[in-house]
Amino acid sequence: MAERSGRVICDITISVDGYAAGLNQTEKRPFGDDGGDGSGARLHAWMFDTPDENRAEIDQMAAAEAFIMGRNMFGPVRGAWDRQWNGWWGGEPPFHAPVFVLTHHARDPQTMNGGTTYHFVTDGITSALTRARAAADGGDVLVQGGATTINQYLAAGLIDELRLHLVPFTLGAGPRLFEGAPSLRLEQVSSRSATLVTHLTYRVLP
Amino acid sequence: MAERSGRVICDITISVDGYAAGLNQTEKRPFGDDGGDGSGARLHAWMFDTPDENRAEIDQMAAAEAFIMGRNMFGPVRGAWDRQWNGWWGGEPPFHAPVFVLTHHARDPQTMNGGTTYHFVTDGITSALTRARAAADGGDVLVQGGATTINQYLAAGLIDELRLHLVPFTLGAGPRLFEGAPSLRLEQVSSRSATLVTHLTYRVLP
Repeated sequence: MAERSGRVICDITISVDGYAAGLNQTEKRPFGDDGGDGSGARLHAWMFDTPDENRAEIDQMAAAEAFIMGRNMFGPVRGAWDRQWNGWWGGEPPFHAPVFVLTHHARDPQTMNGGTTYHFVTDGITSALTRARAAADGGDVLVQGGATTINQYLAAGLIDELRLHLVPFTLGAGPRLFEGAPSLRLEQVSSRSATLVTHLTYRVLP
Repeated sequence: MAERSGRVICDITISVDGYAAGLNQTEKRPFGDDGGDGSGARLHAWMFDTPDENRAEIDQMAAAEAFIMGRNMFGPVRGAWDRQWNGWWGGEPPFHAPVFVLTHHARDPQTMNGGTTYHFVTDGITSALTRARAAADGGDVLVQGGATTINQYLAAGLIDELRLHLVPFTLGAGPRLFEGAPSLRLEQVSSRSATLVTHLTYRVLP
């Protein structure tokens, strides 16, 4: 079998003004002031309310063989791990693969049901990517978010492909995709509109 | 003939991070630090380099029967009209209709070839819209830009439809669409990708 050459992909849902969440995240409102109940259900209505229409994009996300996320995407705990927090996704998270969580606070890996293990990486985004690449073993690595984490990877020139899911409202404040990222040249790979979303895929040019 | 009920449309080309121009506009560089020569040719390559592919969107823009623009879009002159400046578009501008220019400095109307007359409006965006609606006589009014002007109209709840032309690069700084605008709920009307652009049309919901 030919050796697979995994890509580094970021995949994120943003409002038409570029925000991936609102301000004021809490445990009960992981997406903060998102114009809805804070659960992210408004931003992700395309996934939850119209999954059939968006099956390809949802499946594509799940096809990655390792994931990276920022600590705020993982949970509301700040500072030291002063309680057992195992992500927002319950006992069987939808990743079914290793997930590398960026944090300043060391913690042992946490194995969940269904093939997901959370690994906690304290030595930076490059180290997390090296570990994720090794875990993916030639498959794709997906930088899941949030926007702040993706922006760090964009700034470091480490993203090959952007998959944006643009939803039809503005948020006006929050973590914004591309904030602080350098000038990027992109190539449009595809776009498709469904009822509640426009899917845009770009390749990052050197 | 049935009475026409004109819409108020904004039509603007933006980078994927939402900027309609770069910083540092000058007479020689109307789009400032736009990652190219400042002429806007980079942002508008879809119009100039691939017009056949984008004929529908270009024609749709020209179909408006009155236009509104901010003074910085009209030209580089600041403060009083201390010299004769008749826009960036030469002796026969592509509007072929009345153009209402927002300014704090009164000036007599300027008639150009081909049906364009520049009117200078000193009493605000609502007044400019009232005059543009009257001039359009039931046809569409197009708020042409820049982003700052469109944001004022969005904040005032005066836009019916947004036509965005999303181009595949980031600018990182400049006048940004939606900056300071309130939360908007939109309905996706259409989207289409061409080689150098994705066209997105949204209706603004009440």
